[in-house]
Amino acid sequence: MTPVTPPLDALPVPDHTRRQFDFLLESHRLTGITRVNRLLDGSRGESSAEHSWHLALMAVVLAADHAPEVDLSRVVTMLVIHDIVEVEAGDVPIYDEQLRLDIVAAEEHAAARLFGRLPAPQGGHLLLLWHEFEDARTDDARFARAIDRLQPLLLHWASDGAAWAERGVTVTQERRIMSAIDQFWPSLGPLADTLIADAHRRGLLAD
Amino acid sequence: MTPVTPPLDALPVPDHTRRQFDFLLESHRLTGITRVNRLLDGSRGESSAEHSWHLALMAVVLAADHAPEVDLSRVVTMLVIHDIVEVEAGDVPIYDEQLRLDIVAAEEHAAARLFGRLPAPQGGHLLLLWHEFEDARTDDARFARAIDRLQPLLLHWASDGAAWAERGVTVTQERRIMSAIDQFWPSLGPLADTLIADAHRRGLLAD
Repeated sequence: MTPVTPPLDALPVPDHTRRQFDFLLESHRLTGITRVNRLLDGSRGESSAEHSWHLALMAVVLAADHAPEVDLSRVVTMLVIHDIVEVEAGDVPIYDEQLRLDIVAAEEHAAARLFGRLPAPQGGHLLLLWHEFEDARTDDARFARAIDRLQPLLLHWASDGAAWAERGVTVTQERRIMSAIDQFWPSLGPLADTLIADAHRRGLLAD
Repeated sequence: MTPVTPPLDALPVPDHTRRQFDFLLESHRLTGITRVNRLLDGSRGESSAEHSWHLALMAVVLAADHAPEVDLSRVVTMLVIHDIVEVEAGDVPIYDEQLRLDIVAAEEHAAARLFGRLPAPQGGHLLLLWHEFEDARTDDARFARAIDRLQPLLLHWASDGAAWAERGVTVTQERRIMSAIDQFWPSLGPLADTLIADAHRRGLLAD
């Protein structure tokens, strides 16, 4: 379980490439960050890397009908990079609402350090994209943010609400948290509402 | 460990959306397909979903210098979907060269079935993109294919060749397998050669 430190300093490649490899290897640690929800077969927790992959797939599938106007390469890039800060700051579940607020500064420092591993213009560009996602001010970012919230809702619903039960999440709390989907991207709001209503009807979300 | 069958039939959403949710949930099983290489901390095998995420990230990082002419949204979409067939056909390591040839037909059937879960025009579109990646005839596909080969090489190199040692991979075999990188995308060839030469020098690849 001891992390290997790759001997990048001794590798005869341009410094530019060395910095890109370093960033890619450091980012790979996102595979070791475990989220609240389990895989659908229940075998282990979903990693943040897997979550990021599934978000990219979900954006591809849902953009065609719901967001033909977004720039899919920007949306998918945001989704692929948005959680990398967790390799330093860890994953804070959406249900720990106060902790989510507390961790903002730590995530911003982590983003500056992580993207700063890349060659300067590229690192700066990705850091801007990361902030764009966080700030949710552009259409690309708002669609990406809605997808980031809808994906765990779909998984919780599909896995008989195991993660909800563990945390005693109520339908009121879930509706409040997931109302962000409708705010970020109104056409996805009704899908979220339907999943929550169905989960409530089946007793997966408490009153 | 029993897979949950999500009650999609009873969910009051349009059939179009139901098919998209069905595809997304079926695809999520890619998190349960384990590859040869382990996470960099050695804790468990990398899942094909994590591999796909890391490929997308690597494409974003390397395209800027090596392939500014590709359509990044097509490249990343190919990388995000290219391994989904493994939820039916399983992962066959690159080192089982005969088995890789044998599994081609099974993967094609799996692709038709999986993408066929989506609404018709969208499923057909993604199936075409999957074939484009497999056929490696366009620039977008060739860059994606090169990335798909370079990523495990970088991870093997960074993890002191653990996966190579387990399989007794020689430097000659690795050079032959990785020569595809140079064929797919010549500017990435020297990076692969450098990683292999360095791994050989350090005794991670046998003579």
